[in-house]
Amino acid sequence: MTDLEKLVAINEIHCLMARRVRALDAHDWETYEACHAEDHVSAGPQWNPGGGRKAMMDALKKNMDGIRHIHFVHSPMIEILSPTEARGFWTLEDYLYWKQGDEDHWFHGWGHYDDTYGVRDGQWLFTSRRLSYMRKEHSPGSRREGEGNGS
Amino acid sequence: MTDLEKLVAINEIHCLMARRVRALDAHDWETYEACHAEDHVSAGPQWNPGGGRKAMMDALKKNMDGIRHIHFVHSPMIEILSPTEARGFWTLEDYLYWKQGDEDHWFHGWGHYDDTYGVRDGQWLFTSRRLSYMRKEHSPGSRREGEGNGS
Amino acid sequence: MTDLEKLVAINEIHCLMARRVRALDAHDWETYEACHAEDHVSAGPQWNPGGGRKAMMDALKKNMDGIRHIHFVHSPMIEILSPTEARGFWTLEDYLYWKQGDEDHWFHGWGHYDDTYGVRDGQWLFTSRRLSYMRKEHSPGSRREGEGNGS
Repeated sequence: MTDLEKLVAINEIHCLMARRVRALDAHDWETYEACHAEDHVSAGPQWNPGGGRKAMMDALKKNMDGIRHIHFVHSPMIEILSPTEARGFWTLEDYLYWKQGDEDHWFHGWGHYDDTYGVRDGQWLFTSRRLSYMRKEHSPGSRREGEGNGS
Repeated sequence: MTDLEKLVAINEIHCLMARRVRALDAHDWETYEACHAEDHVSAGPQWNPGGGRKAMMDALKKNMDGIRHIHFVHSPMIEILSPTEARGFWTLEDYLYWKQGDEDHWFHGWGHYDDTYGVRDGQWLFTSRRLSYMRKEHSPGSRREGEGNGS
Repeated sequence: MTDLEKLVAINEIHCLMARRVRALDAHDWETYEACHAEDHVSAGPQWNPGGGRKAMMDALKKNMDGIRHIHFVHSPMIEILSPTEARGFWTLEDYLYWKQGDEDHWFHGWGHYDDTYGVRDGQWLFTSRRLSYMRKEHSPGSRREGEGNGS
């Protein structure tokens, strides 16, 4: 690949991540799903839906039902491995808010993503994502001690 | 436009936003104003100065007088529409601090920007900006319940 | 330099910063050191190790011993000055956590970096970094009133 081709790919992957987090926080699941290859695998600290995009989407929709949340991603480092393969690192700060009965609860996480990306039908998509938290805080009595969005 | 021309434009727009937020948080109003086209329109959730850059600057200077603040912007997704037109999406976290009499007050916002950009005299500038908050928190008794910087 | 050469350099500097903050928060001092030129100089608000990378590393390792921390960097504005010289601006949010005896303490900072970069043996490295805080908060009784990571 030429330098120019690599830079075009890096920009597309930056935009892919931005599209993903916007769709995630809007619960726009159709757009979110379309950011991922069919064989995508997500692995969170306490949550691994295993085989493929459909399992990830089912787990995510269930996990995020009734939750309001915000995901901020920073300082990407994308490496283009071939015309159809890349990997990337981002830092993440996420905030989750929900009710348990009448009680307000929250989770606040500081972590990073280790991703891989692949080209499918001419478009860069997520092929895997591993979220590792550096720090987690939560409201007393939270039922979500160890996890953020799980993907 | 070639891929290279688009990437050059995207980088210029990234730097435009960085220059804007640095000038904003420094109250460097001359630099801030120069980031915007004369016909720029900002629309915030409860604040819309309407016609043009001058109205925006007047409202902003009044709104931010006596306030210390910090704006962090993340994960841009810039789309070049033509050699002189583009649009962009960014996430935003902002923090405001001020006094009401002797009391310390604060606002903390989580949101995103939907911008448009245009070329004027060979330079990319903001032509519009819409700020939408996903979440807002403020100190009890704050006189700024619903707004951050307003632009 | 051509536009393409400048864009390649900007991407390398973006990745350099991402590598630095990942290594910093992991206390991976070997990788961290390798991000800096031998004559690198860091200047923090209350902390300036003076001459060169070795002094910076000695001060940093001592300063960060026993501290858990997170550094998020945003919205770079990189200017390529020559084929071997560049400067950059980033915003920073940092969080530090440590024990004083049995007590949990913390520092939370909002600032920005003014960096310079140079090419050494074909690779972009940090040659200087100045951290300026816009706001600092800390736990009551903290022994780290005025400083974050110091570099």
